[in-house]
Amino acid sequence: MSKIKVTIWNENVHELEQNALGDYIRQSYPNGIHQCLKENLTADDLEIRTATLDMPEQGLPDALLNDTDVLVWWGHCAHARVEDELVEKIRTRVTCGMGLLVLHSGHYSKIFKRLMGTSCGLRWREIGEKERLWVVDASHPIAKGVPETFTLPHTEMYGEPFDIPDDGKVIFMSWYEGGNVFRSGVAFQRDAGKVFYFSPGHETYPIYKDENVIKVIGNAIRWANPQQPILKDRLATNQAVPLEKVTTENPMEKIDTSALHEKQ
Amino acid sequence: MSKIKVTIWNENVHELEQNALGDYIRQSYPNGIHQCLKENLTADDLEIRTATLDMPEQGLPDALLNDTDVLVWWGHCAHARVEDELVEKIRTRVTCGMGLLVLHSGHYSKIFKRLMGTSCGLRWREIGEKERLWVVDASHPIAKGVPETFTLPHTEMYGEPFDIPDDGKVIFMSWYEGGNVFRSGVAFQRDAGKVFYFSPGHETYPIYKDENVIKVIGNAIRWANPQQPILKDRLATNQAVPLEKVTTENPMEKIDTSALHEKQ
Amino acid sequence: MSKIKVTIWNENVHELEQNALGDYIRQSYPNGIHQCLKENLTADDLEIRTATLDMPEQGLPDALLNDTDVLVWWGHCAHARVEDELVEKIRTRVTCGMGLLVLHSGHYSKIFKRLMGTSCGLRWREIGEKERLWVVDASHPIAKGVPETFTLPHTEMYGEPFDIPDDGKVIFMSWYEGGNVFRSGVAFQRDAGKVFYFSPGHETYPIYKDENVIKVIGNAIRWANPQQPILKDRLATNQAVPLEKVTTENPMEKIDTSALHEKQ
Amino acid sequence: MSKIKVTIWNENVHELEQNALGDYIRQSYPNGIHQCLKENLTADDLEIRTATLDMPEQGLPDALLNDTDVLVWWGHCAHARVEDELVEKIRTRVTCGMGLLVLHSGHYSKIFKRLMGTSCGLRWREIGEKERLWVVDASHPIAKGVPETFTLPHTEMYGEPFDIPDDGKVIFMSWYEGGNVFRSGVAFQRDAGKVFYFSPGHETYPIYKDENVIKVIGNAIRWANPQQPILKDRLATNQAVPLEKVTTENPMEKIDTSALHEKQ
Repeated sequence: MSKIKVTIWNENVHELEQNALGDYIRQSYPNGIHQCLKENLTADDLEIRTATLDMPEQGLPDALLNDTDVLVWWGHCAHARVEDELVEKIRTRVTCGMGLLVLHSGHYSKIFKRLMGTSCGLRWREIGEKERLWVVDASHPIAKGVPETFTLPHTEMYGEPFDIPDDGKVIFMSWYEGGNVFRSGVAFQRDAGKVFYFSPGHETYPIYKDENVIKVIGNAIRWANPQQPILKDRLATNQAVPLEKVTTENPMEKIDTSALHEKQ
Repeated sequence: MSKIKVTIWNENVHELEQNALGDYIRQSYPNGIHQCLKENLTADDLEIRTATLDMPEQGLPDALLNDTDVLVWWGHCAHARVEDELVEKIRTRVTCGMGLLVLHSGHYSKIFKRLMGTSCGLRWREIGEKERLWVVDASHPIAKGVPETFTLPHTEMYGEPFDIPDDGKVIFMSWYEGGNVFRSGVAFQRDAGKVFYFSPGHETYPIYKDENVIKVIGNAIRWANPQQPILKDRLATNQAVPLEKVTTENPMEKIDTSALHEKQ
Repeated sequence: MSKIKVTIWNENVHELEQNALGDYIRQSYPNGIHQCLKENLTADDLEIRTATLDMPEQGLPDALLNDTDVLVWWGHCAHARVEDELVEKIRTRVTCGMGLLVLHSGHYSKIFKRLMGTSCGLRWREIGEKERLWVVDASHPIAKGVPETFTLPHTEMYGEPFDIPDDGKVIFMSWYEGGNVFRSGVAFQRDAGKVFYFSPGHETYPIYKDENVIKVIGNAIRWANPQQPILKDRLATNQAVPLEKVTTENPMEKIDTSALHEKQ
Repeated sequence: MSKIKVTIWNENVHELEQNALGDYIRQSYPNGIHQCLKENLTADDLEIRTATLDMPEQGLPDALLNDTDVLVWWGHCAHARVEDELVEKIRTRVTCGMGLLVLHSGHYSKIFKRLMGTSCGLRWREIGEKERLWVVDASHPIAKGVPETFTLPHTEMYGEPFDIPDDGKVIFMSWYEGGNVFRSGVAFQRDAGKVFYFSPGHETYPIYKDENVIKVIGNAIRWANPQQPILKDRLATNQAVPLEKVTTENPMEKIDTSALHEKQ
């Protein structure tokens, strides 16, 4: 069996800040969130690569993107720095079949907003409160082996209303000590590609060391792995087709319409 | 009762072409598709304005867009000429509550693709064949008064697979003489805004003179008309909220996190 | 404008119990939950009737059911006593266009389970804890005029996982003091009929006196009111239709198939 | 790897009729539709059993039903003869995780209607016309290896409107020579169980010998096979849960509520 080729992309900005906050974050993620995720997700069926915003081509040259089965995305304060052209490349590859996992503050990333079409807004509060997750659909592969409910002692709160389309399949919902609720794990399909949003994962808490969180992300990678070869020519689907013999006499038959379609 | 403010936007390029095709199109639409739609949709509860690509600010200055309850969109060969900034303004107003009707080749417009997140591709064939539409949900307000099935004698074929998200509510499906099928009338919601895609309407056939087609578009305008005031501050919804008293002792309490959010 | 004909059905069992619990419930609902709802929902556009299980034909003779635009359902300990034949009549009228509101413990009523097809199970706990509701889609007519969040000081907890189909449009979500979350307001369509489930409303707390709860129920009645005449012949939709001329030579042509369909 | 335990249930009535029609049907299905399906679906990963209505316990004794991973259902003229008690057993096992494939006229079976909650009506015409199927979502496992479009030379027409809930994921759509269209392959989830409806398969044409039809059914069996053990205790999910400490003083605390729940 060939391995699933996973690329974990992290903007990796908070982890490098030279201030008290940066010091604090590095206690949890000394080598960055991407390295922590890679270490904790390591398994025989996964080939995991990491990429960061400060690398050439923002970490995702064509050679790597086009060799990726599932892309994991973490971003927060540098969403605007991701180039539109790269976003469009990623979006196209998702619609062609690549899986995409969007974590935490990635709800406001260009790529997630581009795939959803909605505002992707939410309510938030950062006081380190307790979060309790609930499995809404225990039969879903992303919930496999995850207890019906589990807690994270300190998290940033993300709350409803969460501006996402109605085709989101809700796998997890969260309760927060401060009085909020959230659809914290939601699965989408965009053409041939599967997309999963999972909200736990604030940079200042060691959430990516939690075994349940890691299990969810690992399950989601395997779920999002394309079951058929990733299409090469998806952009060509707006295509002409001949088919049955048509008996209608077309009033347009004597008009040259070639000028029309050259412009498309 | 105040009228629904409708703006019909048309790229209006084919209608002006100086060739045999243009001559032919002008037989059906001497003043452009937008004028034909305006004339046929005229009703006491609608205040209809038209706009075209060649007008200042591509026909949609802020004053007009911000005064529009429902925008009707027709485009084909000039999608690429619509400016990204305008597309983003329209998208934002839709998510804030404005209704949007996307007609025919508008499936490949920037605004529709931006709201769907998918490729919006389809199959097509232009031989003037017969199309038969079927009402899939007769109880939906967009189907009110529309016969269970009706035909258009000559149309461009649009066929499946149609790359749209799964939250589309199918109101109409089409049969084509040449052997294709299509989800030809599909309703979406994007945050507070309603979006309806309706495929009939090729420029070379007088489809916008068909009474059933006009009835569908008129119904859709009234359906998409926002039932609550259009939000002004939707983009601000990613906002912080205080709430219940939290008893957790936050390990982050002594860290200054202000640096973090200044960057967002 | 003709009034919406609303029928509020209540099993009305707890309210009549001759014990300490019954005494307690009667403090909130001296004339039954149905009368409290009727009084608080009274408005010029509504014609409200009430019905209870102990009435002839279990409160819903054909004459009343067939004159009902929107049925409101409250049941808890007597679900099993509602006759299957009546359930099927209600289900049929819903699919023909009648609106249905299912309140609180009605999640386990025969009619709700019959319309959902799922188990409709949930988690519960009865310790009078605080519930906080959140509006998930403020643009939905059922949320009109409802604050983004409001609390009920004492409720029975209903928690996820809630076994309902994925076509439920989530309008409200609830947070409970004890650590649970719930999709507490969910809208469905079943053929021509609209169905809304709303979880607040335990018999032992005066929840149907809360102005926000009443506003939601009132909004839902107007939303569920059929916009087109309720169909008379929905059961006949599995019907044969002639249509286009078909040129295929049918190998079955010489076989008498009448025997087949007589049996259907 | 353990085999998927498949049970193909067929009412097996048409095949036994002693008339010209029965003679004709037996040309295609000399041993019944169930045997034809079994032979054509045979594969190393499947353990296929068949069952018919005339067998003891209508072919589905508990021992067999409880040993079935995926149930395939074919019925037409004898829907009413299937006992309600058996239908409820099947429905419960589906919600607990068993896969269910409903073929052709099974759209009007008790089990399908019970799982959908809608009328499941459609339009039909039996003149042996040509059907052309289109793959709507090529990335779905049920469409794996199926050509984008394929035809069946002679079928019974099933047409829209098809009264099913909106959570149906459309995998196939059909075109009919006589002018109709249909969502001919639709996937649902009901709690833990997957359900697939596939319309081709009229008894009078050898449709279950078509390689594409067989491929679809084989794919669907593998898709519907539960990925986690089938639950034993799903009916118990309406259960009480203790959880976080609650600080609210409950006005009900001194009331004995046990009487209430004994009745449930």
